[in-house]
Amino acid sequence: MGGCDVVVVGAGFAGLSAALELTGRGLRVVVVEARDRVGGRVLTRYLPDGTQLDLGGQWVGPTQHRVLELIERFGVETYPSPEFGRAVIDHEGRRLDEPPAEVVALRAELDRLSREVPTREPWRHPRAAEWDATTLASWLAGRAATPAAARSVARATAGALLAADAGEVSLLHTLFYLASGDGLDNLAAYAGGAQACRVVGGPQALAERMAAALPPGTVLLNRPVRRVAYSAGSARVWAGDEVHEAARAIIAIPPLLAGRIDYDPPLPPLRDGLTQRVPAGHSLKTHAVYARPFWRDDGLSGISTSTDGVLTETADNTPPGGPRAVLTSFAYGVDAHRLRAMDAGARRAAVLDRLAELFGDRARDAEDFVEFDWAAEPWTRGCFSGHPVPGTWTGYGPALRAPVQTLHWAGTETATRWNGYFDGAIESGHRAAAEVAAEIGGETGGETAGGSGS
Amino acid sequence: MGGCDVVVVGAGFAGLSAALELTGRGLRVVVVEARDRVGGRVLTRYLPDGTQLDLGGQWVGPTQHRVLELIERFGVETYPSPEFGRAVIDHEGRRLDEPPAEVVALRAELDRLSREVPTREPWRHPRAAEWDATTLASWLAGRAATPAAARSVARATAGALLAADAGEVSLLHTLFYLASGDGLDNLAAYAGGAQACRVVGGPQALAERMAAALPPGTVLLNRPVRRVAYSAGSARVWAGDEVHEAARAIIAIPPLLAGRIDYDPPLPPLRDGLTQRVPAGHSLKTHAVYARPFWRDDGLSGISTSTDGVLTETADNTPPGGPRAVLTSFAYGVDAHRLRAMDAGARRAAVLDRLAELFGDRARDAEDFVEFDWAAEPWTRGCFSGHPVPGTWTGYGPALRAPVQTLHWAGTETATRWNGYFDGAIESGHRAAAEVAAEIGGETGGETAGGSGS
Repeated sequence: MGGCDVVVVGAGFAGLSAALELTGRGLRVVVVEARDRVGGRVLTRYLPDGTQLDLGGQWVGPTQHRVLELIERFGVETYPSPEFGRAVIDHEGRRLDEPPAEVVALRAELDRLSREVPTREPWRHPRAAEWDATTLASWLAGRAATPAAARSVARATAGALLAADAGEVSLLHTLFYLASGDGLDNLAAYAGGAQACRVVGGPQALAERMAAALPPGTVLLNRPVRRVAYSAGSARVWAGDEVHEAARAIIAIPPLLAGRIDYDPPLPPLRDGLTQRVPAGHSLKTHAVYARPFWRDDGLSGISTSTDGVLTETADNTPPGGPRAVLTSFAYGVDAHRLRAMDAGARRAAVLDRLAELFGDRARDAEDFVEFDWAAEPWTRGCFSGHPVPGTWTGYGPALRAPVQTLHWAGTETATRWNGYFDGAIESGHRAAAEVAAEIGGETGGETAGGSGS
Repeated sequence: MGGCDVVVVGAGFAGLSAALELTGRGLRVVVVEARDRVGGRVLTRYLPDGTQLDLGGQWVGPTQHRVLELIERFGVETYPSPEFGRAVIDHEGRRLDEPPAEVVALRAELDRLSREVPTREPWRHPRAAEWDATTLASWLAGRAATPAAARSVARATAGALLAADAGEVSLLHTLFYLASGDGLDNLAAYAGGAQACRVVGGPQALAERMAAALPPGTVLLNRPVRRVAYSAGSARVWAGDEVHEAARAIIAIPPLLAGRIDYDPPLPPLRDGLTQRVPAGHSLKTHAVYARPFWRDDGLSGISTSTDGVLTETADNTPPGGPRAVLTSFAYGVDAHRLRAMDAGARRAAVLDRLAELFGDRARDAEDFVEFDWAAEPWTRGCFSGHPVPGTWTGYGPALRAPVQTLHWAGTETATRWNGYFDGAIESGHRAAAEVAAEIGGETGGETAGGSGS
């Protein structure tokens, strides 16, 4: 109940980064977290034999400098994603060695357009209104030579990046997202790209070390925040049974959850309207565990992409030390809904049947099958992250990061670079911390170089 | 705190209709309402001289049988909207006597397509996936011979009906909405259409009489609901400082507000995902009050539609008995945001300037200028109503009305006919009441014929 300088809502990577930055500047910080753990949209579990499963966010890549800096600082180890064999490209049921030319061309055009989009203020692009009023599905329908090419690109972008259907997201948001992650090829890649490495112990281990580096008592778990009162000079946060008063508050949770807090006074209509328009994607990530990585016998990497079928993509998620092999599958949007509507046994069978089509009958011999549904988690309500729906960037975009009196907004959805990733979350925490420090002081410099956000 | 058969959350037209139906069947009902008044998205205010201003929903039309039935039953009077003179049709700054042929053709095509859409399950139309993945803006851009024709239709549909921009709503939702209200001409019309009549004392008076007809103590005001726990056999509702336990609960508030309640256990992902995807429109309705209806001197009705400018439409809102004249203006979507960003004086000047362009310089001589911002109301958060964003009908539609164990959903957003109107709210209340009565009994028949919904 005591006073502090800054109260941070949410102990994911955004909130923890903000807290590290602010305590490094000598400010007194409290971080309140609804769950019984830190880390947000990451969760690492171990099977009884020690097989590591990352049930949420898991990969990091070479241009994600902020998260790599934290990994180095906290002495967490990483290992490269497996690089055996070749990927399966299933194009309308045909196996291709490489994507069809028209798919390559569509992807290249998206990348080219994305480089025009200012990631800080996408609504300022000259064609922003048109692009934000056009769904990715419409754009692809007007461009693709074949429906299969459109599906291929739709599933690689709206699906694999946003966990949505191409009719749910605008061309503008798609381009923004590509720009924020250095283009589609980089976002989709394993070696050298966004899925280059995994973290030993999982990203959960990194979040735990970040929390442990804060002054004792900074992070308070099991404190769901229902109410925030604010004025020109202070903010009060009701967290669990406590009230925390501070000069500033940083709300470091996704917009859709931030919108579920009661604010006193109510937030301005543009900000509240924004929180109504950034739903979380719907993904279903499942892990099939095998005695050994049988797909490698056929020279396959375990990576697959498909224009059809309930699984948009798969990946070899086998930890380097074993003991067993893991093939991870992703279903998005209506495919995820379709799987969710089944009972657990039917869902397992549907996934393994599809894996058998992609990798052979041995895929049916999974020893374990593990799933975790983030959409059913009240402190998440979907994954990977939130996406502004069509018309939102141009109608409500300026409210995404603009502070409201003493309230500041963080979370990966507010990032300009690596939006939707750990790296974006960290950027957002640093940016919000810099906003606060600029107003209420604290020692200069902070605890990370470049902590003022960039 | 006592037990009852049904607890209804929300005392708008949906909740009051459900309560009337259920108490008529002999069931014990409690209605909990967050505000200090009943009626929901209606609010009638009187200026000191007695001029009546309806700040929220206000009109009723001839095919809105459910609301007309209540109006008759409760002895509320109506009066026809003014029918003097001719409308102003401002088409790119030109005054037209009638809409251009291409606008008429586009409107007719939308109406024709809308008649194909099954309003109970729009997602079952053969082209539902395509239409739900296409924004109205994209559809119009591909069809309209001129951008002005596209703007005209966009503003008459996405704007005037949904208080949104045409890039924010799908073709499927637009068609559904047209179908639910008997077509665009009927939805847009005054005499003979959806704006045919007003209610003496405002719709607020009707809501108050509905509440007064319930057993004493049924409606409990100032009881915001933050938490609902439910099981296969009962529901508990935390309302203000009380807990109400019942066999069933009817949540009769918009999906976006229903999603802000904490549910125990959490709602199924499809239902929670739906609540993330039905934002409220953003409208700004302003009332300019004059000594007399000067526009009638020029043979004008006060009704206007414009392809450009901050005001999409205006209407003569003068009560028949005076004492003064009222010209009401509507701005939608980004136009509403633009006006909201101004201070009150600048906003008044911007509206009056535009009215002067439409109706002559005397429009600047407003004696009073009254606005009410529903988007700033925490128990509303926008108006006129919620619209599913692109991809929502096809991805999440089945969760709109499907009960979750003992929880039932009402509110005009769930209506199949006159969705977004009082009439749809009443339909939804009757439908939810019928669902509940079918499960927990009560005397047969209920209190309204046809109460089982249709």
